[in-house]
Amino acid sequence: MNRVSFRPCTLQATLGKRRSISTNTARFALPPTILQILARNEVDEKVTVTGWVKSIRKQKRVAFGVLSDGSSPTGLQAVFHEDLGERVKQITNGTSICVRGSIVKSPGSGQDKELLVDEVEILGECDPETYPIQKKTLTPEYLRDYTHLRPRTGAIAAMVRLRSHLMRELNNYFANQGFTYAHTPILTSGDAEGGGEAFRIAPVSPLPSHEFFTHPAYLTVSHQLHLEALSHSLGRVYTLSPCFRAERGVTRRHLAEFWMFEAEWNVIPTTDPRAQTVALCDFVEGAIKGSVGESGIIHGEDVNALWQHREHDSSSEDDRAKAREAVVLAVTSNAAWPKISYSEAVRELLKSNIDWEFPVRWGSPLQTEHEKWLSETLVGGPLFVTDYPAAIKPFYMRANPAMEGEDETTVGCFDLLVPHAGELVGGSVREERLNKLKESMQSKGMDMDGERYGWYGDLRRFGGGPHVGFGLGFERLLGWVGGINNVRECVPMPRWAGKMDL
Amino acid sequence: MNRVSFRPCTLQATLGKRRSISTNTARFALPPTILQILARNEVDEKVTVTGWVKSIRKQKRVAFGVLSDGSSPTGLQAVFHEDLGERVKQITNGTSICVRGSIVKSPGSGQDKELLVDEVEILGECDPETYPIQKKTLTPEYLRDYTHLRPRTGAIAAMVRLRSHLMRELNNYFANQGFTYAHTPILTSGDAEGGGEAFRIAPVSPLPSHEFFTHPAYLTVSHQLHLEALSHSLGRVYTLSPCFRAERGVTRRHLAEFWMFEAEWNVIPTTDPRAQTVALCDFVEGAIKGSVGESGIIHGEDVNALWQHREHDSSSEDDRAKAREAVVLAVTSNAAWPKISYSEAVRELLKSNIDWEFPVRWGSPLQTEHEKWLSETLVGGPLFVTDYPAAIKPFYMRANPAMEGEDETTVGCFDLLVPHAGELVGGSVREERLNKLKESMQSKGMDMDGERYGWYGDLRRFGGGPHVGFGLGFERLLGWVGGINNVRECVPMPRWAGKMDL
Repeated sequence: MNRVSFRPCTLQATLGKRRSISTNTARFALPPTILQILARNEVDEKVTVTGWVKSIRKQKRVAFGVLSDGSSPTGLQAVFHEDLGERVKQITNGTSICVRGSIVKSPGSGQDKELLVDEVEILGECDPETYPIQKKTLTPEYLRDYTHLRPRTGAIAAMVRLRSHLMRELNNYFANQGFTYAHTPILTSGDAEGGGEAFRIAPVSPLPSHEFFTHPAYLTVSHQLHLEALSHSLGRVYTLSPCFRAERGVTRRHLAEFWMFEAEWNVIPTTDPRAQTVALCDFVEGAIKGSVGESGIIHGEDVNALWQHREHDSSSEDDRAKAREAVVLAVTSNAAWPKISYSEAVRELLKSNIDWEFPVRWGSPLQTEHEKWLSETLVGGPLFVTDYPAAIKPFYMRANPAMEGEDETTVGCFDLLVPHAGELVGGSVREERLNKLKESMQSKGMDMDGERYGWYGDLRRFGGGPHVGFGLGFERLLGWVGGINNVRECVPMPRWAGKMDL
Repeated sequence: MNRVSFRPCTLQATLGKRRSISTNTARFALPPTILQILARNEVDEKVTVTGWVKSIRKQKRVAFGVLSDGSSPTGLQAVFHEDLGERVKQITNGTSICVRGSIVKSPGSGQDKELLVDEVEILGECDPETYPIQKKTLTPEYLRDYTHLRPRTGAIAAMVRLRSHLMRELNNYFANQGFTYAHTPILTSGDAEGGGEAFRIAPVSPLPSHEFFTHPAYLTVSHQLHLEALSHSLGRVYTLSPCFRAERGVTRRHLAEFWMFEAEWNVIPTTDPRAQTVALCDFVEGAIKGSVGESGIIHGEDVNALWQHREHDSSSEDDRAKAREAVVLAVTSNAAWPKISYSEAVRELLKSNIDWEFPVRWGSPLQTEHEKWLSETLVGGPLFVTDYPAAIKPFYMRANPAMEGEDETTVGCFDLLVPHAGELVGGSVREERLNKLKESMQSKGMDMDGERYGWYGDLRRFGGGPHVGFGLGFERLLGWVGGINNVRECVPMPRWAGKMDL
């Protein structure tokens, strides 16, 4: 069993002393994966591997197969000699086999090691006439109709592994910063302010009053408010959890079911309230640089494999290489990502003299075309836009003190815009002042003292304090890091209006 | 910034070389938590901490407060001298404050270090007259009506941290065993075989045909089948994900929304099929012992805090100490957890001469009273019961070869029973043989070639192979490890029939 030898000292204190027990490790461990075998230095090691044949080249006296067990984009070259007999002839792409043999130095180019097969057993055939996943280039659109089989393609498998690695790195980063991962509920009383975008649970009998929970239940659109309840006890909390939107509009950036990484935490008060927004942006930049750049993920095999999948993208090879280099630079450079205020962004957009489809005006939301220009043209990289007008932002954002050049109230918030993926993260300082929160809710027609939001007011009534938070679209982060064009290829089994397979 | 120094060598290969970049760490790091401060050796260190006052004892010239920031069950003793003036008088339990001062060796007993406060700022008052979370013992029932505030109690906060730690250890364990964490969907086409226990998404217009996805959508009751699709490419996959059951029955072991840890993976074929079930049980035992015992969680502060919360339990102090010792022994002992077949279990139950409420008969499911007796009386610890009759188990379990003493077909499966928490894990060898799967589905009135399960058959049609899997009730594991009596106290914001707050 591979023991976890890492333990940050601060976790150790809570977890207690790790007792050494000599469990019978052989009884518990699974055999090594291809990734593990290839990472070791042993040669002449006897191994047994099960997996799928990704390709096979049959010669007169020998056959060369590439075997994948899903553990890495790199397969294991398996060398079948003629004395293995008829069985090898049955092997086609997609066949599941079990092989026993020795790992030896490979005389061929393209791999350091290979497996000299002593024994082969066919576990499951794969009829090349009817198998929907053929060697030929398969379009994303075609594969979306084979949700159960498309993980067998290199791009989807690499994406699923990248999700796992990225989650792991984010977990490490946030644990080291003193955060607790909290499971907030999926079923909630909130209907996203009646916007009609929340999925509703059907009543259990034809009478609408027969609600399972006695009142209507919806699928959550954001975990923020629930996380705030937890941050008011646990201090620093986050979650990576599914969210849902019944949006009819179908774009390459939206899913009906998607995963959000959301965090909420308490901060030390500052004399200049705008400094909290700056610190919040810095923290988010650090979390992304730490988990994507410093972790090594950006240089990993799965990210390499994803950027090589040209069928996801119609841009030229050169443009694609440049796009990748920009992402690598963004997450590995010491240079801070620029921050500009909404008001400055509006000035830059007006100065550009571009004939925008949506007119630029202080007080209007930034549209996709504006965001795209700001990050892709003005900055050429990630960009924080901060301090938006209060009127176009949700009730819970903290009002800024009045500032020259801003006619109306702004709030301490930011959107992180990145080239290609658009808005990647949004966050804000939360309004912790009870009277200000009440005003803000009233201005949006909400009642802080009513049944619906009374609990949210309680968080401020009883020992509230300055706190901040953000939400990061996990599929968008994957798309940005892996150069994946459409969020439908950023989640194993995507759901959108009109489409839910399995 | 606390850097993550751990990297299992096998992950390294996929992630690429970790580049060293000297990011401006001060810009990104949050200030240390109380847990981090107490774990360090520094004294006379200047710190700034925000948090909540858990208790305050005011003397004539000095006041002693205990401050919590949610990072650990142990608070930080803060010493307020009289020159801090009026502000200290305002402090009551639950008040949110920011303190600046020096960490010094504590002259008092009960803590090694304390904070000598130089400055104190009140961030949020907490009116002792109206604050619902008073010092007096609060019952779990009372607290369930204050979902947003109950994380402020020691027991709920410890439970949330324990969830986070346990998840982290499980993630480490499974990553080291070569698994990928996969996000399977919450919205599915499956209605749990029409058992009426799946929540259904309401159509978006009054006409039932106006489905958002064109066909009815349900909330998943298990991620297994979807995970199987992924394991047929990625080899070893798992998830920790919400599941839903619209069960009207209300027990201390059931929630409408709960979290399942589910894993599926490929195995090397064996000549004796029953050996797969044995190996599967061994693996599950290793995963629990590794993540709960060997990780140190079982001896950690949060588990200690949870077992000390007597209000969760009506048993005597002595019985509770014994119950805890049994859990510690189970997860730290080298001794293998016993395995008995269903047939042996039935024989033992009959031999017991107990007057069971539900009669014991080969072919009937084991009832809670039977399971309780087997784990608590017969074994006094965790117990695997294996090889149940096929007729009482789901279609996807692998048929065993016929065996003496068993009149009907059994399947290669197990339930892990533990004292107090009951069935903790269930798993099986999955039926990988296409014809056997078809027979099994037909016997349960299902059509493998139909639209509904055609995809599941495809997994066997195209390169299938022997594979196994299990599902672990995450709340039940927490309840067992932390001695928590009711699963409603095992999740931050529980939902059950008639109850969904926030």
